[in-house]
Amino acid sequence: MAEPCADDLAWSRGWTAEVDSARILLAPELSGELEDALSGALAARGGPPVHRYSAQSAHAGPPVVCIGPAPPRALLQDGSSLVWFHSSYAGVDAVLRGGLPSGVLLTRTVGRMGERIAQFVLGWILSECQKVPDHLAQQRARQWRRLPSELAAGQLAVVYGTGAIGARIGHALRCNGIRTVGVSRTGRGSGGFDDVLPAGRAGEVLPQARWVINALPLTADTADFFDEALFRQLGGATFVNVGRGATVDVESLGRALHGGQVRAAVLDVLPEEPPAPDDACWSLPRTTITSHCAGLTSDEDVVTDFLACWEDLRGARRPFLAVQRERGY
Amino acid sequence: MAEPCADDLAWSRGWTAEVDSARILLAPELSGELEDALSGALAARGGPPVHRYSAQSAHAGPPVVCIGPAPPRALLQDGSSLVWFHSSYAGVDAVLRGGLPSGVLLTRTVGRMGERIAQFVLGWILSECQKVPDHLAQQRARQWRRLPSELAAGQLAVVYGTGAIGARIGHALRCNGIRTVGVSRTGRGSGGFDDVLPAGRAGEVLPQARWVINALPLTADTADFFDEALFRQLGGATFVNVGRGATVDVESLGRALHGGQVRAAVLDVLPEEPPAPDDACWSLPRTTITSHCAGLTSDEDVVTDFLACWEDLRGARRPFLAVQRERGY
Repeated sequence: MAEPCADDLAWSRGWTAEVDSARILLAPELSGELEDALSGALAARGGPPVHRYSAQSAHAGPPVVCIGPAPPRALLQDGSSLVWFHSSYAGVDAVLRGGLPSGVLLTRTVGRMGERIAQFVLGWILSECQKVPDHLAQQRARQWRRLPSELAAGQLAVVYGTGAIGARIGHALRCNGIRTVGVSRTGRGSGGFDDVLPAGRAGEVLPQARWVINALPLTADTADFFDEALFRQLGGATFVNVGRGATVDVESLGRALHGGQVRAAVLDVLPEEPPAPDDACWSLPRTTITSHCAGLTSDEDVVTDFLACWEDLRGARRPFLAVQRERGY
Repeated sequence: MAEPCADDLAWSRGWTAEVDSARILLAPELSGELEDALSGALAARGGPPVHRYSAQSAHAGPPVVCIGPAPPRALLQDGSSLVWFHSSYAGVDAVLRGGLPSGVLLTRTVGRMGERIAQFVLGWILSECQKVPDHLAQQRARQWRRLPSELAAGQLAVVYGTGAIGARIGHALRCNGIRTVGVSRTGRGSGGFDDVLPAGRAGEVLPQARWVINALPLTADTADFFDEALFRQLGGATFVNVGRGATVDVESLGRALHGGQVRAAVLDVLPEEPPAPDDACWSLPRTTITSHCAGLTSDEDVVTDFLACWEDLRGARRPFLAVQRERGY
């Protein structure tokens, strides 16, 4: 195990003792399987017992460590004993917007998210190539009709976003013979692609792309990044959004779907989630909305990542999964 | 280009002249795009023009070379000028059963069949992991509901058949982190797997298998190979059949689907194709029938493989894709 460095010790001063005496409370949304797995793993490490959150537990007493999708409201009020909240999701925008007191440590679950998102993208690409939706419809109609499939290998995917997630997607597609071009602001990428271009030169490849994958984070620069001008450059690509919903102007996407510049779309994320039943996004042609499932963390991920943070704190190290609030992740 | 060997010359005696003077006739089932592509490619090589088959073309005249899914009936009658039939499919059982005269050369299209079948298997595996059918149903119902996906990586696939197709499937799954065990009669395999077992030892891995893939050819030994005793050893695997339909006892499969030993099934092939609308196979639970599409050859495959045979014959070589009738492929 690595020795803690001076910075880590300064950062974590006092945390080791707090963690040893803390009450660990699970938010009501988490499953019984997760509770059992976490209790067992902590007991095996000589750790504290795990309890379910209840209204009483917010009040004075030993420090509270809470795990869940969002902190129960009572834990956010003045006088709360909450010292550490571990998010069962990777995205913590909502937790930060919800007003987590500044003294509370925030960590998050990342788990095998990159791997999951990459498999999501590959799965939907191959599902399209194999005409899975058409075969399912034929099965319902008891219809036997030969449908030619399409070979993914040799075709081009353009992946916007070349960070950890984008690179993982690029790698998964390349392993299956798909040619991949990553697009980033600067043209720098973290490997995983056949080629990386700066956003200003993406027009060189967009017309030939069979798939355009959006793995961009949401920042001031990327809001509505996929707009009319961008979609107009596509020559019949399928668009897959596993980044953030607000990086896409859904009206422009709709026009490109109607105009044929976009052949089909798989939208895992939307500007507003969940969308209202009468939201226009439900009426986009040749589109599947997948309810923000691409990088969904599993119970196993939550247990693994919480334990990693817990071990880091007991070892007086800054948890790798601690959120830097000004950065947002 | 390799020099023809003595055997090749003996085999192909006389063929070079026949091919040079032949009429090339396309069966009516083939597309106009295929006709254009083949005409262009032959013209570029100084070859003969391509015509559509018509009833007149069967009669006396220069030797006939025909390309299609099956030879038009008139070309099978006495006095026909047919000297060479090139099948646009890989499977030629039906052509052989249809009574192709013994003096007629039979070649077939294989194309990128192994690659296509491997992509089919991977595509349906990932489609199941991503719950594509459930997401499509939610889209139709305008429903936003998080569905956890399943990571394929790290799970076990058992592939029956370790020849060219089976190995290709094994390779494609391994590239995506799936553990693969090939099963063959002898326990020998052609690579592509983490491990290969003889059929008699498959019971060691079947209970843990998440997927069981059938890529067996149909022989006297493999008819009804997937029977009650075999299915009983599965512990909830999904069964994918890309081999031959008659290697599976569909009634036993149905019982295993009802009993839970088989979680779901994707059947690309059936004992009788196409199945009647009231065939029991349509009522199998959690099953998708995919109309024998997994290894479907494309127009491009037909043109490429026909030209390869044509070049071989003009070079006095035995075409690599010539069918050995006693073997059946």
